[in-house]
Amino acid sequence: MRALLIVAHGSRRKESNEEVRRLASRILENAGPAFDLVTSAFLEISSPQIDSAVHDLIEDGATEIKVFPYFLAAGTHVVNDIPKLINAEKETHPGIHFEILPHLGALQGISTLILNQIYHGTPLNPSLAALATD
Amino acid sequence: MRALLIVAHGSRRKESNEEVRRLASRILENAGPAFDLVTSAFLEISSPQIDSAVHDLIEDGATEIKVFPYFLAAGTHVVNDIPKLINAEKETHPGIHFEILPHLGALQGISTLILNQIYHGTPLNPSLAALATD
Repeated sequence: MRALLIVAHGSRRKESNEEVRRLASRILENAGPAFDLVTSAFLEISSPQIDSAVHDLIEDGATEIKVFPYFLAAGTHVVNDIPKLINAEKETHPGIHFEILPHLGALQGISTLILNQIYHGTPLNPSLAALATD
Repeated sequence: MRALLIVAHGSRRKESNEEVRRLASRILENAGPAFDLVTSAFLEISSPQIDSAVHDLIEDGATEIKVFPYFLAAGTHVVNDIPKLINAEKETHPGIHFEILPHLGALQGISTLILNQIYHGTPLNPSLAALATD
């Protein structure tokens, strides 16, 4: 089974952590056959942390876990912390395939998303539809 | 002239601030008739700050400035700091129309963006195209 693990920083504001959990739910709803499981984990303050979330995913049948850093910038959390934590998971669970995806801020389509949403979901011109995944 | 001002937190990592500036450039490239000017400002650490960026936009001819908080969570920067700073700009520049847009994390289309990009820009199923601006 294929799982997506969204890793966020974690906030003292409960509502911010809830936003991440809701994002995981929305992605699962739209995932079609891409992912059987989608969940979230936090580096700090909130829970679950990565080790616990990975444990739960494997218990639910995950054999392949893609890790998505929900960060805008490639700071030390993205560059150092998440890879270190995922390497530890690889050692603990040698039978599971882990892959760290590019972080949110690195997704090129974000500029088109912003423009489209500022314009209430209406593409500004036909060529933008083609750019939706630029 | 219509301007978009992307407001980010600002980072000690120069590369993170550069990412925000590149995002502004990409949005300007795709903006078509929506915006004549697109630029970025930072709350902390980096420059320009909001007052200086607004000053430059107005000098370049902006009469309408939409402010986009480039933040994932509705924390104190989004809820308190940016509105306070923009209110100050409104008082300084009463002839200019300011509007604060929803922050990045509030854009519903983000879940579809993530799924699409994880799959190399290919929608997972036809219904996702319709969801691209959900």
